[in-house]
Amino acid sequence: MEDQKIPERLKKQLEFALEIDKEKNITRQTHLSGQGRAENDAEHAWHMAIMAYLLAEYSNEPVDIKRVMIMCLIHDIVEIDAGDTYAYDTEGKVTQKEREDAAAKRIYSLLPEDQAAELMSIFREFEEGESAEAKFARAMDNLQPLILNDSNGGSDWVAHGVKAQQVYGRQERTKEGSEELYDVTDRILKKYIQKGIL
Amino acid sequence: MEDQKIPERLKKQLEFALEIDKEKNITRQTHLSGQGRAENDAEHAWHMAIMAYLLAEYSNEPVDIKRVMIMCLIHDIVEIDAGDTYAYDTEGKVTQKEREDAAAKRIYSLLPEDQAAELMSIFREFEEGESAEAKFARAMDNLQPLILNDSNGGSDWVAHGVKAQQVYGRQERTKEGSEELYDVTDRILKKYIQKGIL
Repeated sequence: MEDQKIPERLKKQLEFALEIDKEKNITRQTHLSGQGRAENDAEHAWHMAIMAYLLAEYSNEPVDIKRVMIMCLIHDIVEIDAGDTYAYDTEGKVTQKEREDAAAKRIYSLLPEDQAAELMSIFREFEEGESAEAKFARAMDNLQPLILNDSNGGSDWVAHGVKAQQVYGRQERTKEGSEELYDVTDRILKKYIQKGIL
Repeated sequence: MEDQKIPERLKKQLEFALEIDKEKNITRQTHLSGQGRAENDAEHAWHMAIMAYLLAEYSNEPVDIKRVMIMCLIHDIVEIDAGDTYAYDTEGKVTQKEREDAAAKRIYSLLPEDQAAELMSIFREFEEGESAEAKFARAMDNLQPLILNDSNGGSDWVAHGVKAQQVYGRQERTKEGSEELYDVTDRILKKYIQKGIL
């Protein structure tokens, strides 16, 4: 946006909008259904936000669904700089917070100050996982890749040699967001444990 | 979801969630910034929903932003069956409505009845373009590819030999949603007309 006649505020908003386009290039470890290609962060976030809207009735606590949706949509923007850290990458996890905090600062600061502060606060709320909205968004962050992986016979777990204990460790988050969706998760996981895949 | 112990309602919701994964395979004519690959519908919808959230202050009329966001997120789900119809594909436009109506019926009917009706109504509202929310969502549907195409020097227009008159015809929708965002659109388009690209 070189045009001098576009108001400063709008110019910043459009610069941010263009910057986040890069999230479409951040590849995840999850594969699309039908043994498809690897999914990217933007697709994952889109999927999570729709699932949040449709599954909100299962949240343990009432949620402001608008806030859950924007949380889902933006929660991985930091990965434009910090890259995707696989859920079971213990080494990557050590530096993840530092990398993501720096990324959040750079990317959200492209926005006008009020919106930068707002999105930063929504991102931190997601990371802290204390609010009802964050708990439910984090449940979606687990459930979305789970249904894809289940549709592919668990091949993402097989590819990474992931063990049941690791998956259950992570799925504790789902329970905090939704007991009912955790029940489904548990049923799915048990199926793979019985098959000897997990 | 073969498991008999998952409640029928939740089973339907999860089937729908898995079905829409296919939207990630529907390729558009727009290319990612940095002369990237072609964008897909899920990425486009994700981008639009975040832009809607951040740019809502420019809507001509006050909007229920939660409704605008879910409208942005789901508006292209029909393309799983109907395929993407390029904005300037006059032949494709003839059969577009029929193809998309059939697709909406099949895909939304995977959901429990109340949610099927709700999403169908949100989709129709977008298509009709009469409500404040639909007008603003449609402005995002135009602005999102415009900023990508602008970042790539207008190469998507060049590739399709699109003319200024065609683009302006479509951008009338942006004006209905936001006069201010139409002003920016107009400035961007004039730049390409001056360069002889449009």
